[in-house]
Amino acid sequence: MKIDSVDFYYLSMPEVLDIGDGSQDALLVRIQAGDCVGWGECEAAPLVSIASLICPMSHSACKPVVASVVGQEINDVHDIRRIGNLVRANSLDLLQADHTLSGIDIALWDLLGRRLNEPTWKLLGYQSCFLKTPYASVLFGQDAAETLVKAKSIAAQGFRAAKFGWGPFGLSTIEADLDQLVAAREGLGEDGILLIDAGTVWNTDLEAARARLKMLKEVKATWLEEPFVSGALSQYHALSRESGDVGMAGGEGCHNFHMAKHMVDYAGLKYVQIDAGRIGGITIAKDVADYAAAKGVTYVNHTFTSNLALSASLQPFAGLESHTICEFPTELKSLARAMTKNHIVPDKNGLLHVPDAPGLGIDPDLEGIAPYLVDVEISVRGKTIYRTPSLR
Amino acid sequence: MKIDSVDFYYLSMPEVLDIGDGSQDALLVRIQAGDCVGWGECEAAPLVSIASLICPMSHSACKPVVASVVGQEINDVHDIRRIGNLVRANSLDLLQADHTLSGIDIALWDLLGRRLNEPTWKLLGYQSCFLKTPYASVLFGQDAAETLVKAKSIAAQGFRAAKFGWGPFGLSTIEADLDQLVAAREGLGEDGILLIDAGTVWNTDLEAARARLKMLKEVKATWLEEPFVSGALSQYHALSRESGDVGMAGGEGCHNFHMAKHMVDYAGLKYVQIDAGRIGGITIAKDVADYAAAKGVTYVNHTFTSNLALSASLQPFAGLESHTICEFPTELKSLARAMTKNHIVPDKNGLLHVPDAPGLGIDPDLEGIAPYLVDVEISVRGKTIYRTPSLR
Repeated sequence: MKIDSVDFYYLSMPEVLDIGDGSQDALLVRIQAGDCVGWGECEAAPLVSIASLICPMSHSACKPVVASVVGQEINDVHDIRRIGNLVRANSLDLLQADHTLSGIDIALWDLLGRRLNEPTWKLLGYQSCFLKTPYASVLFGQDAAETLVKAKSIAAQGFRAAKFGWGPFGLSTIEADLDQLVAAREGLGEDGILLIDAGTVWNTDLEAARARLKMLKEVKATWLEEPFVSGALSQYHALSRESGDVGMAGGEGCHNFHMAKHMVDYAGLKYVQIDAGRIGGITIAKDVADYAAAKGVTYVNHTFTSNLALSASLQPFAGLESHTICEFPTELKSLARAMTKNHIVPDKNGLLHVPDAPGLGIDPDLEGIAPYLVDVEISVRGKTIYRTPSLR
Repeated sequence: MKIDSVDFYYLSMPEVLDIGDGSQDALLVRIQAGDCVGWGECEAAPLVSIASLICPMSHSACKPVVASVVGQEINDVHDIRRIGNLVRANSLDLLQADHTLSGIDIALWDLLGRRLNEPTWKLLGYQSCFLKTPYASVLFGQDAAETLVKAKSIAAQGFRAAKFGWGPFGLSTIEADLDQLVAAREGLGEDGILLIDAGTVWNTDLEAARARLKMLKEVKATWLEEPFVSGALSQYHALSRESGDVGMAGGEGCHNFHMAKHMVDYAGLKYVQIDAGRIGGITIAKDVADYAAAKGVTYVNHTFTSNLALSASLQPFAGLESHTICEFPTELKSLARAMTKNHIVPDKNGLLHVPDAPGLGIDPDLEGIAPYLVDVEISVRGKTIYRTPSLR
């Protein structure tokens, strides 16, 4: 069957705050092929990805993403990779294209899974899927007292693991950072898995990161995530050699297989964190999971938006039994909850089940979405080339 | 002084052809600070970079690029780097931002040079600038006969070097590729510097590239450019160990310092090719030039658009005496010529002089540009957030 349409829907909270919360807007993708429908999500600035979908061609290697998708045959999983390769070649010089392709690739896996009546992880080649240990992913409090309250609440909800990130961490004094870490550990309890996300705050400053290693070891942090920007391989590697039991985690900024491979090969990572909504979709995320597993690096999803994105991000490592930790955003804005009819929630043991249903196993809630739909119109030379499509 | 405005102008030929010619459209950047003006150019899909300039904020690390530029102080060269760092931090999750920043950074160097009455290369710290050997950069002909005609024409124009790329090369048989290479060498003459650009045609396929090494050695090619996509470090490295006198060249796809550093560190490159309009501007391009020089890798500009972009791309290595080869596009569409009042042309010895005039030393031709200006309007929630600004 042929892909008939690719529709992008820009969704947003009425007010977007200047905080590190990625659930404040979303770019929902719908793909239709005959009577089959699939849904995906791009983790990126929605307007920019919309522009990259429909922009005029600049030259043969800088085409709009839609040109390599609509009209293509989609009958089996090989078609998904073929379409991704087409996009990467035809939009080689269009930087945003990898983020844009991600939502399309995810929607194609959903569409094919629904058509073939198989969960995506089965189509990916896994025979079975395994329980994951979700970590509650939250922002640091504005001070240690607020972080303590958050950590206690997470423990009370039954989570075995929690990640604190962004906020004031790394920006203030070493003493203030220590207070934050001690509060997080205290609230979570001695046995909890404590993860720390520096959110690239030290950019490439090895010394600033190094100055926090002792305290991270003291609070028994399982990992330090993104002390540096994604490409700072040599800084990651240098820090990893001194970090002892505190594993280096990173990779969410990677937007293609090669960048993730470089993180695995050269950065001394213990955990590679991949956002299926950025790296080129489930296809490339699975390639990274395979590569990481072969190299003894643990694969972890990066997810900060809806349950549709969460399901997509779980599929690539659903069948890797020993890769247990998974990101589970717990401070979602109402938009991210309203987007889907069903939700992925931890069971009574605090463990997460990857959906065992056709495709991604998550159904968009069109009525729930409607209030968040942002009206966008783009015209070039007086001709409208994009207008927010109807949800019906 | 404060940056008052950043204006993006989408320029295009009336018809854009499906060929590997990057001069068919352009994104011109004007920055104003008080009574000072600077001009730059982004090498990217214009509509997408416009969207990234003005899109609504998604979260604290996904802001529109303009938010980190307008209102900033611009008094000396440190301000340019500070603004770039701000953009990279505030737009961390906005993939297109590096391309967008590039044109802004270039315009800031132009603005500051004009204000301080110094050429950009002097502000970059070079004491003097050196003559460059331009290579005529053209597409392969559709067949060997057409390539022979092109090569003879280039030699007749006095060029000492020529680069042939894209077109049918690498897509057809090995025999057809050999015919193309022999024709290029024959037309250029025995003493000409022959450069071959595979345009990522083999993606990551080492064997396909390896199969062309013998013929590249036979025609004495100085380099083989982009046999693979930018990130394919291990494939580049493997090929470099067998390529003898044919140097590996690549890097145009890099959109930040780290990616270029990885190419230098891990890919076995002899030539690193940087597009100042993609990598984050002149600031980051100069960082790469410094790093490459220290590592014994030759820096080369990548340029395929106007003379404004050409001047910007020459500045970062203007003072590196032994890095002589430079890209000089010679099949420019009329837009790219019409954009500027003055042009950079080889002297009677076939050598290129980096402009020795304030800023980039290139003056936009507003009357020449006008016919190519594309009318764009973007509205979100019924409010116009971008409309093509006036050139006056």
